[in-house]
Amino acid sequence: MELLESIIECLRRIRERKPLIHNITNFVVMNETANAILCIGALPIMSHAAEEVQEMVGIANCLVLNIGTLSPDWIDAMIAAGKAANKKGIPIVLDPVGAGATRLRTESCRRLLSELRISSVRGNLAEVAALVGIASEVRGVESIAAADSPERVAQALAETYGCTAAVTGATDIVCDGSRLARISNGHPLLGKVVGTGCMSTAIVGAFAAVEPDPFTASAAALTAFGIAGELAATVSGDRPGTFHVELYNALYALSEDHVRSAAKIEIANVG
Amino acid sequence: MELLESIIECLRRIRERKPLIHNITNFVVMNETANAILCIGALPIMSHAAEEVQEMVGIANCLVLNIGTLSPDWIDAMIAAGKAANKKGIPIVLDPVGAGATRLRTESCRRLLSELRISSVRGNLAEVAALVGIASEVRGVESIAAADSPERVAQALAETYGCTAAVTGATDIVCDGSRLARISNGHPLLGKVVGTGCMSTAIVGAFAAVEPDPFTASAAALTAFGIAGELAATVSGDRPGTFHVELYNALYALSEDHVRSAAKIEIANVG
Amino acid sequence: MELLESIIECLRRIRERKPLIHNITNFVVMNETANAILCIGALPIMSHAAEEVQEMVGIANCLVLNIGTLSPDWIDAMIAAGKAANKKGIPIVLDPVGAGATRLRTESCRRLLSELRISSVRGNLAEVAALVGIASEVRGVESIAAADSPERVAQALAETYGCTAAVTGATDIVCDGSRLARISNGHPLLGKVVGTGCMSTAIVGAFAAVEPDPFTASAAALTAFGIAGELAATVSGDRPGTFHVELYNALYALSEDHVRSAAKIEIANVG
Repeated sequence: MELLESIIECLRRIRERKPLIHNITNFVVMNETANAILCIGALPIMSHAAEEVQEMVGIANCLVLNIGTLSPDWIDAMIAAGKAANKKGIPIVLDPVGAGATRLRTESCRRLLSELRISSVRGNLAEVAALVGIASEVRGVESIAAADSPERVAQALAETYGCTAAVTGATDIVCDGSRLARISNGHPLLGKVVGTGCMSTAIVGAFAAVEPDPFTASAAALTAFGIAGELAATVSGDRPGTFHVELYNALYALSEDHVRSAAKIEIANVG
Repeated sequence: MELLESIIECLRRIRERKPLIHNITNFVVMNETANAILCIGALPIMSHAAEEVQEMVGIANCLVLNIGTLSPDWIDAMIAAGKAANKKGIPIVLDPVGAGATRLRTESCRRLLSELRISSVRGNLAEVAALVGIASEVRGVESIAAADSPERVAQALAETYGCTAAVTGATDIVCDGSRLARISNGHPLLGKVVGTGCMSTAIVGAFAAVEPDPFTASAAALTAFGIAGELAATVSGDRPGTFHVELYNALYALSEDHVRSAAKIEIANVG
Repeated sequence: MELLESIIECLRRIRERKPLIHNITNFVVMNETANAILCIGALPIMSHAAEEVQEMVGIANCLVLNIGTLSPDWIDAMIAAGKAANKKGIPIVLDPVGAGATRLRTESCRRLLSELRISSVRGNLAEVAALVGIASEVRGVESIAAADSPERVAQALAETYGCTAAVTGATDIVCDGSRLARISNGHPLLGKVVGTGCMSTAIVGAFAAVEPDPFTASAAALTAFGIAGELAATVSGDRPGTFHVELYNALYALSEDHVRSAAKIEIANVG
């Protein structure tokens, strides 16, 4: 399977090149996403000041934008950093945390998607649905319901903004408008630790830094992250605190063998 | 014992209803309090932008305010969110982190208590004493001394602001002006991990979201949290890093049986 | 060996006096550095509001400044807090996170070093080189290369700003212009957990709060921290998530015996 080889190749490149992932992200998960990036083999930097984000983008290999605890000045910094990233030609990955919960979140994401060329978006069903005007309910940052399927929501976002859309849940859906991947890796305990969604977005960033095709990078990253979750749960049992610790261990230890034996991906063409 | 049944009923409701707890809290514990809320069975959201807090309150079941790394604009957002919470009729829980250490902290708390109807306050002895003008010494966020007993300090706050006051320490005291609870659950290792006080406040928020009587909610929450601390220490031994991890495991695993066998509460009438 | 006795004496004083360490630090490591300070036996406070930093310094025993997620208003608060610390006569420890990566970081550090009397600086090779104009490459917060040796970089900073300079890496170098220490404690896993550099700076702060000689405080602290890293790795094996947890356990458990049996320090006079 071609994507399986891509996962392995991406992991190899990340660990060899140590790409720098510039994150403008939320206060809740800054440490956790930085550790996820470091454990997979890349280097994280967190930087949000308007006075330095363009310069930081200049040495970065990918920009990850996450609106989890947004305020207007941080969105402005995201726009400035994003324009520099577009100019430089490095990928931008967006996590629309809580889109649909408030107008500020929904509209800020739409502004980012309109003013920047964003390669990949990673969110839950309700968040991504909100971005394309499909009715949904998000309770804080938790997806409760949406009026359409993850496949159609992902496709709608991909078509509207010309990006790769990843809608994560029990099955992760990745769609770039023409290709669609269904990834069945992952574990329910990922829903019992704060910030695992944000971590998965950060891992998409690490993969996007070494893989120019956003569809491949997103699908490969989410498969790898899902497998790490499965490995962690094997050790932790049903204990979320321990699972959190083991998730870092698993990201760090993730090997070609793990990927070959555990990956559960289906790829299809779409209309 | 009536409160014992309330703890069990609150836990059942939290896990069934998954109430949304809106936190405007400090940078140090955002991740930790969010994980505590998630582990007990509720849903956390961290949101502080003036542009969205009123709307976020609109979908929340409780508002938790914590001044641990306050700045004036965050206090303004707390006031705006608090007014929306009062209008909507959801409870507000306040953690006066470091009150008494600086004028900004003491006065910001008094402003919150004056301009908002706050259901419950949870702090250490020196912090709560500072709010009612009883001489105390707080070293950063650590209670060193106070000129009166926890019982009288709690009662003074309850009477001054018409709220439920929880003063936590070796024994936790909860008082609403007419009733007083003494809770002897907990473990010394809770003092060796940063943010366990803030976590206990967040857990009060989760209980307040499903139990309309603030006295019952506060006493039930602190008992549950103290029992979780005892369970965690059983596994961790005298290792604070491990204890921190086990505390999440214990909050997640906390069962009716744990509560029935471990709760140590006395209730009395006052004044 | 004299420094060995100083480490033990510092640990004893920290645990007896519980000095308050006031941190103005970055969002990524606030929780982690606070826990490191608490585990070694001191008390942490995080406070950044211009409205309260001077008052907080008034009850603190040391001020730690860390520019990891700086913005101009935070630098202003650092200056205000630093002037209060200088006036009161308590030590200031600086962590120049990411200096060299952006002009804002390099220039902010130089401003802090020029406007304040800073006792100790703790950074990696590229960061410290950037502060004294020696060519270096920093990828985000990771030291990639520098045009001179750690010994000469540390000495240059010490001489330029009249402070103690600590350049950490495989071997830690501490220099105050006349004395130079080489510390061979530590473990490669410290490079696999985000914020261990910031933690080591916070531990320098705890030692500086009880030891008036900045050279002794810095060298003693970095030796103690390195030994804690070694102890943690003994338990964790090659698992960074577990190592992170064990690092807190090791800081908490660090004893005279550990220090006596593990310390690897050489001291020399310099030109």
